This record gives sequence, structure tokens and C-alpha cells, in this order.
Amino acid sequence: MYKVVSFLIIFFCGVTHVSSQEPVEYVNPFIGTSNFGATNPGAIAPRGMVSVSPFNVAGKQNVLEKDSRWLSNPYVNENTFLTGFSHVNLSGVGCPDLGVILLMPTTGAIETNHLKYGSAYSNEKAKPGYYSTFLTKYDVQVETTATTRTGVSRYSFPKGASNILLNLGLGLTNEAGASIKIVSPTEIEGMRTVGSFCYYKPEEAYPVYFVAKFSKPADAYGVWKKPAKYNGEEAQWMPYNGKARLMEGYRKEVIGDSIGSYFTYNFDKPTQIEVKVGVSYVSIENARENLEKETQNASFDDIFSKTASSWNENLSKIKVEGGSNDDKTIFYTALYHTLIHPNILNDYNGEYPKMATRETLKTAGTRFTVFSFWDTYRNLHALMSLVYPKQQSDMVKSMLDIYDESGWLPKWELNATETTTMVGDPAGIILTDTYLKGIQDFDVEKAYQAMAKSADALENNPLRPGIKNYIEKGYLTTEQEGSVSTTQEYNATDFSIALLAKALNKKEDYKRFSKRSISYRALFDKNLKLLRPRNEDGTFYEPFNPLAGANFEKNIGFIEGNAWQYAFMVSHDIKGLMKLMGGSKAFSNQLQKVFDANQFDMANEPDIAYPYLFNYVKGEEWRTQKLVAELVKQYFQNKPAGLPGNDDTGTMSAWLIYSMMGIYPISPGEPVYTITTPVFDKVTIALDPNYYKGKELIIEKTGAKDGVIKDVYLGDALHKSYFIQHSDLVKGSTLKINLN
Amino acid sequence: MYKVVSFLIIFFCGVTHVSSQEPVEYVNPFIGTSNFGATNPGAIAPRGMVSVSPFNVAGKQNVLEKDSRWLSNPYVNENTFLTGFSHVNLSGVGCPDLGVILLMPTTGAIETNHLKYGSAYSNEKAKPGYYSTFLTKYDVQVETTATTRTGVSRYSFPKGASNILLNLGLGLTNEAGASIKIVSPTEIEGMRTVGSFCYYKPEEAYPVYFVAKFSKPADAYGVWKKPAKYNGEEAQWMPYNGKARLMEGYRKEVIGDSIGSYFTYNFDKPTQIEVKVGVSYVSIENARENLEKETQNASFDDIFSKTASSWNENLSKIKVEGGSNDDKTIFYTALYHTLIHPNILNDYNGEYPKMATRETLKTAGTRFTVFSFWDTYRNLHALMSLVYPKQQSDMVKSMLDIYDESGWLPKWELNATETTTMVGDPAGIILTDTYLKGIQDFDVEKAYQAMAKSADALENNPLRPGIKNYIEKGYLTTEQEGSVSTTQEYNATDFSIALLAKALNKKEDYKRFSKRSISYRALFDKNLKLLRPRNEDGTFYEPFNPLAGANFEKNIGFIEGNAWQYAFMVSHDIKGLMKLMGGSKAFSNQLQKVFDANQFDMANEPDIAYPYLFNYVKGEEWRTQKLVAELVKQYFQNKPAGLPGNDDTGTMSAWLIYSMMGIYPISPGEPVYTITTPVFDKVTIALDPNYYKGKELIIEKTGAKDGVIKDVYLGDALHKSYFIQHSDLVKGSTLKINLN
Repeated sequence: MYKVVSFLIIFFCGVTHVSSQEPVEYVNPFIGTSNFGATNPGAIAPRGMVSVSPFNVAGKQNVLEKDSRWLSNPYVNENTFLTGFSHVNLSGVGCPDLGVILLMPTTGAIETNHLKYGSAYSNEKAKPGYYSTFLTKYDVQVETTATTRTGVSRYSFPKGASNILLNLGLGLTNEAGASIKIVSPTEIEGMRTVGSFCYYKPEEAYPVYFVAKFSKPADAYGVWKKPAKYNGEEAQWMPYNGKARLMEGYRKEVIGDSIGSYFTYNFDKPTQIEVKVGVSYVSIENARENLEKETQNASFDDIFSKTASSWNENLSKIKVEGGSNDDKTIFYTALYHTLIHPNILNDYNGEYPKMATRETLKTAGTRFTVFSFWDTYRNLHALMSLVYPKQQSDMVKSMLDIYDESGWLPKWELNATETTTMVGDPAGIILTDTYLKGIQDFDVEKAYQAMAKSADALENNPLRPGIKNYIEKGYLTTEQEGSVSTTQEYNATDFSIALLAKALNKKEDYKRFSKRSISYRALFDKNLKLLRPRNEDGTFYEPFNPLAGANFEKNIGFIEGNAWQYAFMVSHDIKGLMKLMGGSKAFSNQLQKVFDANQFDMANEPDIAYPYLFNYVKGEEWRTQKLVAELVKQYFQNKPAGLPGNDDTGTMSAWLIYSMMGIYPISPGEPVYTITTPVFDKVTIALDPNYYKGKELIIEKTGAKDGVIKDVYLGDALHKSYFIQHSDLVKGSTLKINLN
Repeated sequence: MYKVVSFLIIFFCGVTHVSSQEPVEYVNPFIGTSNFGATNPGAIAPRGMVSVSPFNVAGKQNVLEKDSRWLSNPYVNENTFLTGFSHVNLSGVGCPDLGVILLMPTTGAIETNHLKYGSAYSNEKAKPGYYSTFLTKYDVQVETTATTRTGVSRYSFPKGASNILLNLGLGLTNEAGASIKIVSPTEIEGMRTVGSFCYYKPEEAYPVYFVAKFSKPADAYGVWKKPAKYNGEEAQWMPYNGKARLMEGYRKEVIGDSIGSYFTYNFDKPTQIEVKVGVSYVSIENARENLEKETQNASFDDIFSKTASSWNENLSKIKVEGGSNDDKTIFYTALYHTLIHPNILNDYNGEYPKMATRETLKTAGTRFTVFSFWDTYRNLHALMSLVYPKQQSDMVKSMLDIYDESGWLPKWELNATETTTMVGDPAGIILTDTYLKGIQDFDVEKAYQAMAKSADALENNPLRPGIKNYIEKGYLTTEQEGSVSTTQEYNATDFSIALLAKALNKKEDYKRFSKRSISYRALFDKNLKLLRPRNEDGTFYEPFNPLAGANFEKNIGFIEGNAWQYAFMVSHDIKGLMKLMGGSKAFSNQLQKVFDANQFDMANEPDIAYPYLFNYVKGEEWRTQKLVAELVKQYFQNKPAGLPGNDDTGTMSAWLIYSMMGIYPISPGEPVYTITTPVFDKVTIALDPNYYKGKELIIEKTGAKDGVIKDVYLGDALHKSYFIQHSDLVKGSTLKINLN
């Protein structure tokens, strides 16, 4: 408690020094807001359901315009035309969705067309739980903060006629349909339809509900609606056809694709207005309760103070020493990004919508959402298990809830819809990884049953398309999209099932899934030393260009990548792959080629572990150390374009965090890390006493400043491997990495 | 009580005789469903908020199709393609609105496009509170009934797969936007946007809420949505773009212009399902309460029985003897039609929406709606005052509520929106007429204030456009639409204000408004002996064709009529008009010309009193008797095309009722009737003891069967006039009309 209080004093009294101490102060939320990082600088609480992000992707003035391309973020740093502040947003995803419930302060006469009321802006500031900017067109200062389920805005208006617009037509999502009702001159309620993430599953589009409360009653208010244009014979009698209408003082629901409300004020002096927007995926009543319970009439400053302190508490689980300010900034910003998704879905009262059908369910714990498992199974959940095991446990429980609700584990779950985005069946890897890391306070038998179900169901299996070929032939064929990639993904999951089967003493399954986990080998082309798609008749696909498919081009056999970017994505069977390639030397030569030929893609997941694979070859570990250090420097920087690409709900950030700490979870599912040179001199991870015996894990870098690793000690004992067991790390040991 | 019970025994035991006794059994709800009568045969309770009408105006198969023309009714008798049963409907209006919340039973696979699921139908039956038909495509018998605020349907399904669709996309209104949510396998809730009546006031479009309860849980259910087509760059990634989606088992709100729900059943034998749809203009909660309080788990048969008995009780206020079965049928059907609108707007708990802004208000009495005053001020409210004075008193109170809420009396009020349809400022006439007939249990000073306000307000006066010219010049000029008609309407209202001023002892106002009430005289063209528009400079409008403007053609100076059809529409100043025309002989010659030249329009209001005007000319009264009898015969018949045209919310029906009873309220505002030959031998009106001293008013026809009136007796006293005071009639007298 003392710590938080003293932190707050430092934080709010503006007496921060150059050598500021608190992790929260290093975070730069603008990192990832350019170069398609897809993060946003909006105010958000840790794992918050709500964020209040500037929305600047509408209007042709902008460099990247949401309707003229595939764009998955509400904010782009280089854009200049701001049309509001959206209250539910995704961070670091690859498809447009959410980005709705937009508030916008304006002055003068009411204008409801965002292309007309949009404004330039300047002087942006962002820190965890806070964003502010100045709207130059209106002379209005905007500040935003948030609790878990409530967005809070403070507008500093000049004297005169001012307005607060709530636009439910505009949004990043391509879904439409909203309802709005002015409850009183200080309150608005409504809902907005969102969904069809990645242009899939429109039949699961769903509502997000809100209640907005204003600190001062509006002097006048109303609703607008721009209806669809009527095309019948009667259009001749409808002079209003398709035109926006203002409904002054109107107090019932208005429904439509393009609707909004306005509150207007006549200020006789410069005045601040605070707006709180509570959100729920269950009901308007819950949105109101979320707002009331979480904000309790607290002021903007009080709310920000509480949220900032919550951020600091989370970020402080890892303490880093040494390294530059920029190093600390990219590190803590990455950690900040891993604490955004998965986020909380349930309301304050525990209610949340059931998968797909959206009946109201209730949890006593936390129902998490935004499970982008194709990305996050590779490292993010391993990081959660290490640093935030309670959160990871709750995420696993949410996965099992989803299994109970829908009959299947999640794959890319978003707000209680299974978007079925990307390939593979990665949930089992996360379950195994979590369990084997010692987080076992969940129903592991159910987890195993769920994993085995998607691994074995031959009919109507939403998680494993192509499973018949996979089981019969060992691989998917060119009849199926991304046949090689998908085979590799299924192999990785089957390996995890085998691991868990072993732990649960299911010997037959252990054998069966172990065998299945290496079936990718049948796709190995000895001549190319790469994996290659096979046709239905078993022959290799011709003509075959191993370079095709980079930069998200469509490609036979591979999803979001080419043969080089997938060839080594068998982290559970690197020794088997070495054998196929002709031994460890041939393996490391081939691996080095990926980098030499510029085929390594830092911005996408399939090859994300490649730099660490040299650790499997004795004597080549220096390559890992060199590559990782170079990649960190090249791709991760303290600037808006400071991520290599899409953050993928924190996966890129998790890669950076591990890489800067000097360990990496090289084979998801296996509780093992591989070792590289840390960026920091000392990293201290506070271990959760409910899960780990050790109080903290310390990683220390000693010896020469820019050398290669000479030896590694675990405590006082020399550690003769570049791999280390999770169980060894969480005993409270110190891992000393000694350079020369 | 005894009477009602015995009626029900007769009614339901099927032992009705040829000479059936009860008024309710004479009603033929198909009258007015052709020839643009705009009534519908749907089941409705007296003054019900809800009716359940067959909806057969969508689809090109139909003779009159709603989207290919101006069509203001949900049902047209000659149409053949039925696409559902709508739950809120207007009867006898001139503009399309409502006709929404459509239920449709189907069988087989789910089809959500009404153009595909629509059906032919046969064997229609309708009586007050009941409608049934057989859907030939599906082999489904449909029956509907209703309470005041709840529509009830009973579907007799064959064995097999069956569905009940609730379509919120389809509707007669041109407004769009709806919300639907499946609450449980037996309940659905939602809302539909309606409004823009007569293509006016889109900014006051408003929601109607509903809750639907099903007697058996659905075996499966879902919602559909057909979204608007997305036109951006991203459309290429949306294979579902603009296509209808089925959302099976979905349990949250779905919003859109084209949405609906389906309940499906698998019957192992023929099965009946009952669906109750409660409606409210305030909220879903109120719709649910309306349903629960009004139906109390009662069966279809119980509900129909209660509604039929309520109809019979209302219709029995007038008892007719003599006349043919057809005479009784057209008479009681007309009375039935006058008991549909105005209808009840408030919910069971008294709540109703405030005018325009729709805040929730509450009444301890009844808030009536659908005030089509340009039509109904001429006779319908006079009929209400005579036969249903409590209802008329409540209507007046609703008018004053509207004044309180909006600052103005209603003109064409519909569900708490002022549609501002048609011309004139007729509310004051109704208020005066009601008060002077002895119904005085309302705040007459407020009423007077309200009437005077619109009569005098020179600025921002929504009720009297052109008022400056009217007051300065005595007439509107060709600058204003319908300048002659509107001048006449304002004169008529000013006459009523003068009458009320006199009654309230406001002498100055009496003089002032009396003077204003005859200003139309300045528009009299001595050469034509007609009223004629004047230009802004005072000259008559040229070129002037007195015949132009019939059949709803647009016409300078006149609204929905020509100079002949308006010339005599000064019923408060017939003596003045006579003088202008050169005496009573010239007057009756000119009046006869209207009929001889075929310029009389039975189907519209301006000349509706013409046939009675011969009573003002001594010796010419036989013309009234002859004309009225002929018009009744020619235009009012027991068949779908049995109304002269649009029923105008009961105005045509009220004309018929009065004409068949032998009296007519010739000068609205003045408590006076003029006399003609009744159709019936005896008419007995039960007088309300709370308002009238007499127990009943009896009108008896005696003497020769088809003669002209020889003399008239009031009680035992010879009545030497063809005019009679209301106060004389309601003392409990018998009016004997003796023919020779």
C-alpha cells in the first residue's frame, strides 16, 4: 500500500526525475501505432473491456482510410483527421472489428456527418490509463481514462455553444445496426452491433451495450438518424428520403445503421464536462451497473489515479535494471501490450454471453476473451504462466467454459464468438503448457477430453478441417487450404496432447499422439530440404516455388508465409528435422540461409522461434545470441513504428520481453526455455506464491558487455545447457548468464 | 350482466337464428376493404391499440401492391397473396403507416423472404374481434382475435415441420428499423420503427414495442437479418455481403431494417399453437404487462368471447328496428367502424408517450389517439357525444393533454405525433360541440385558451399557416396552398370559438370571432356564385376553372376538391351564403347543380353535408330526403366495395349512421341536428345517465313507407322545424317522423 501511495505522489505531483523509478512511467502507448502494429494509444485498464481510443481512420484526409483498404485499427499515428473516440477496441489484431461507440466534442452548430465534424488535432499524450489531445478545429482539450468496463472522458470546452456527439453509425467494424435512447439530460443508453471479424461468421454478429453519463445536464439534446434510401414508387413523396434527420428532445429508442445523439451546452465560461461510458456485452442494465459500481461518482482524476496504480502494480511484476531508457520503454510497453488482451468479458456482476447463442451465463471468476491462439500459443501464454499465473489459470478456465458452452475449445475467440480465423488447433498446446508449468488448479481431465475431441473427431470438426487426410495420410493435401502449415500446426498440438497424456498416465494416447506429432516428416522434400505440399495422390505439388507466399501473398500449402518461413516450425521435433536435413550442420546451414536470403519475417508467427533454433546445434549458439540482439535492435524501437508489424494481441511483445530477459519458451507445450543474452543486467520477476515456491526469479547478466555467452549458472551450479526447465527457474533461483 | 351472458350462449353455441338479435352479429368487417375504403377485416377490440389483420399488399401477384403506389391499408379484398398478419394497423386512413409486427405460419424448410413464403388463402371469415382464413400453400388454418393491447392468433398446423415467422422488416409503413430478441423458446420481444405518416415528419418516427408469447416452446428457433449491402473496398472479402443470415439459437438483440425471427416445431400430429402479441408505445416491459394483465393465461376462445361481448355492449347502445338485414349490416358495420378510431394509446398501467419527444407520461384515465380531425370534426365526434359521451369526454381530455404536452391542440394526431396532415384548425370545433352538447366534465377554460391560441398566434403557428393574411385580409391568398379551403376551415373554427366565448360569457371574443367567422364572404365571386381564390393583391385568381380539382387533382385554392365541392362548406353561415347567392331560391338552384352536374363527391369530406342543406330552404326539404336516401343506397352496401371511398377513420360511417337514423349534425359546433327520413322504423339510443337526463332517445318513422316527411313530433308536440336542438333530443323524448 505504501508503495502505491508513494508512487501516486510521484506520479501526480509532477516531481518525476530523469531517473524515474516506476515501470508505468516507461510505457509509451504510441509504440505500435504505425507500421501496421495495430495497437492504439487509447486509455485502458489492465485487461479492460473498454478502452477510449482516438479514432482517426475515417475520411480521405487520412493516409490509411478504413473503408478504402483492409485496416484493423482505430488509430494510425500518421493520420491527421480525427472523428471521435471509440470505446471498445482491439489492440494488435489483423482484422477490423469493434472501434465503436464514438464520442466527439464539437462547438458551434450541430453537424452529424463525421466527414464534416472531424478535426485536426495536436499535442497528443498517452500513458497507461490516460490519453489526451487538443482538437484544433474546436479549441477543445480531450482527456480520456478508463476503468475495466467504463471509459471516462473529460472535455475542456471554451465559452459558447458546445456539443458532445455520440455516433453509433461510424465504426471500424463492417457490421452495422444500433439503438440509442436518451434517458435524461445526463444519460444515454443503447447498443451497437459488431462482429464478422475477419469477414467471417456474420451470423454471429453481436451487440455491445452501453450507458453514457454526463457530469452536467445538457441544455438541449436530440438524436439523429440517416435512414437507408427508399427506392420504391413512393420515394417521390419522400422529400426526406435518405437524408439525416435531427430529432430534438426525442426520448425513445431510435434504431438504424447510421444514428447518433447530441448533447448541446451553452457555456458562459470555459467549462469541463466529464462523460462516463459503461459497457457490457450482456445488457444495458449491466452496462449501467458496471459504470456505477466501478466509478462510484469518482472524478476523472480519481479514476485515472486508480487505473494508473493498477497498471503499475501489474508492470512491477518484472523489474529490470541496466539497459537504456529506450530499452526499458520498449520492454515495459511490450509488457503493457501483453496485459491488454486477453481481456475481461464478464460484467461486474459476473454475467457474460454464452458462445454463439449469447444466452446470459454467470461466472464467479473471470471470463476472459480475445483468444488469438494461432499467435499467442507460441509465447504469450507461457509468459502469463511465468509472471501472471493466476491470470493464466483464469484464461484456461475460460477456455474450458467455452468448451462447455460450445462443445469445442476456442481457436480465435472474440467476445463469445468463435471467429475460426487462421489454421490449426492450438488450444491444447496452451492447456498442456500451463499444466506442465505447474498451474494445475483447473479440471485437467476435462481439458484433456476437450483436446482429444478435436484431435479425433472425423465429422463436423470445426477446429481441424482436413482431419481425415491428416489421420490417414499424416498430412493434409493441396485439396485443403494451407495444407503444409496446417499439418505442422496439428502436429504441434498432437505433441502437446501426447505430453499431457504422459503426465496423466494415459500411455496409449501418449504413444498414439507422439506418433501423430511427427507426421509432417512425410512432407519433407529431400532435394529442397524444405516442407512441400503433397497432392491428393501423394505426389509433390508442382510447380513449386519455395519463395512464393511471403508478404501475405496467397500460396498453395502455406498460410501467411512461404516454405522457408515454415520449414523449421516443428519446435517439438527439431532433432527429427535435423535428421531429415542431414544432420546438425546441414540444419544450421539451412537455417542460416533463411536469414541470409532475407526470408526471415519478424512480423509474423510461423518463423518467430527461428533465431533461437541455433541453440540446438552445439557451437552455433552465438548465432542465436547475435540474431536475437540484432532483431531486437532492428525491429523494436521507442517510436510509433517500433513494432515489426502487427502486435498480434501481444505475441510480438511477448517475443520481445522474453528476448530482452534472455530466455525463450522454445517449444510451446514443453515447460522449457532456451537461453540467450539478456538486454538487461538484471531482471527480477516476482513469482506468485500461490503457484510457485520461489519468491522471485532473477536473471543476471555478468561479464563482458557485448560478448557472447561464456557460461550459465543456476544459483551456484554451472548449468551446462542452453535449455532450462521451467521448474528449475521458479524455485527462487538466480540464472546468471556470463558473457565473455 | 344477464344480457351479456345470454348473448354469449347464443353467440357460441351456434344456435343463431335467421332473425338473429344481437348487433354484433350484423357486422361485416369486409365492408370497406375494397374501393379504397381502407378498412381491414382484422380482429380488434373496441378502440383497441392492437388489431390482427391479414396483410396481403406485398408482392407483385397482388392487384394493389404497397410499394408500387400510394396505398394506405394492410389488406385489399381483391388481392390474393398473403404474407402475414400485422398487429398494429390503421383503419380508414389516407396514408400508409403501421401495418407492422407480422406473424406468419409456414411449414417445411425456413424461408425468410416474404415474396417466397407468401401464400394464397381461402375461406375468409370475419366478425368483430375475430378473423380466420385458410392458407392453401401450407394447409394451415389461421384464426385471430384481440384484447385492447394484445393480438392473439391460433394456428392449426398439420403434422410435420412447421414454423412461425415474426417478420419485422415487412410493413405498410415506409419507416424502417427494428430490434428483436428471443427471450426463451416461448417468448420474443422487440420493437419496430414506424411513422412519417403521409410522408411528413420523419423526425418524429417512433417505436412500437412488443412481446410475443407462444403456447408451446419451439423445438428450434433463431433470428434472421438481411443487412444493407456494404459498398466499400472491403466488400470483396465479404461473401455474405447484403445476404440474409440465419442466426440459429441466438439470444441477444438483433437490429436492422430487415430482420425477423423463426420458431420451428416438429409436430407428430396436427397441432394448434396460440401466439399472443402484447404491444406498447412506451416500452417492452409495458408490452409484456399489457399482455399479461389483459390475457391472464386465457385461451383464444375465452379472449374472443370477452372481446365479442365488449363489442356487443358498445354496438347495443343503438338499437334499430325495421329495415332489411343489409340495412342493419351496413348500419352496425358503420358503428363498428366508428368504434375503431380514435383508439387507446396508453398502456394498461396508464403510461403513454409524450407528444413528439416521447418521454413517458401517465394518465389515470384514457389517452386516445388517431385524431383525424379534418375528417371527424364534421360528424364523428358529434356521434360520440350523443351515443358514447364518456368516450367523447375522454377524447377531449386527451386533446387537452396534447395541448399541455406540445403547446398546441391536435390536428391529425397519430400515436403521439402531430402529423400536420390536411388543412384547417378543427380541434376547437370539436371542443365547442362537445361542451355545448352538455359534456362539460373537462377544463373548458383551458380548452378555450388553447383554441384562442392557435386562432391568434401570428408567429410559429403550426396549426394556422397563412394566419397573417387571414387576419389582415380575411382570407388566405394564392401564395398559400388551398387558400379558399383553408379560409373556410378557419372560419368554421372561429365560429365555434365565438359560440364557446358566448357560452363562457367572453363578450368581446364572441364579437371578434363571430366577425372573423364570415370572412370567407370576401372570396365569393358573384358571377360564378362560387368561392374563388384571390391573389396577394386582392384580385381573383385567373384563369379559374371551377371544375378543376376533383378526384384529388392538385388545384389552386382548394384542397382535395374543386370550387363546387367547397362552395357550400360554410354550414355555420348558410343564411349569409344564401344572401350572397341571391336568396334561397338561387341558393337551392345552385346547390342542386352540384348534384346535377355530377360534382358531388360522396367520398370526401368538404361537401359531405351538402345533401342536408336543402333543409335550409322552406319547401325544398324533400330534396334532402330524396338525396340522402339515394346516396345511402348507391354508396353504402353490404360488400367489400360498400363504402364510397376511404372511411376516413369512421367519418363516412358516421355520415351513414346519422343518415340512416334520420338526423344529421349539420353545423359542427352548434348543438343542432337537421332531420331527414330514417331508414329504420325505430331507432333507440341508450343515453348515458352520467351525461343526459333522458334514459333513451327514440326516433320513430311512421306513416307511408316511401313518402316524404309530412310532419315531425317531439314527444306529443308538433315540431315545426327541420332542425332540432341536441338538448331537446336527450331529454328522453321520442322523435316521430311522419311520412305521407
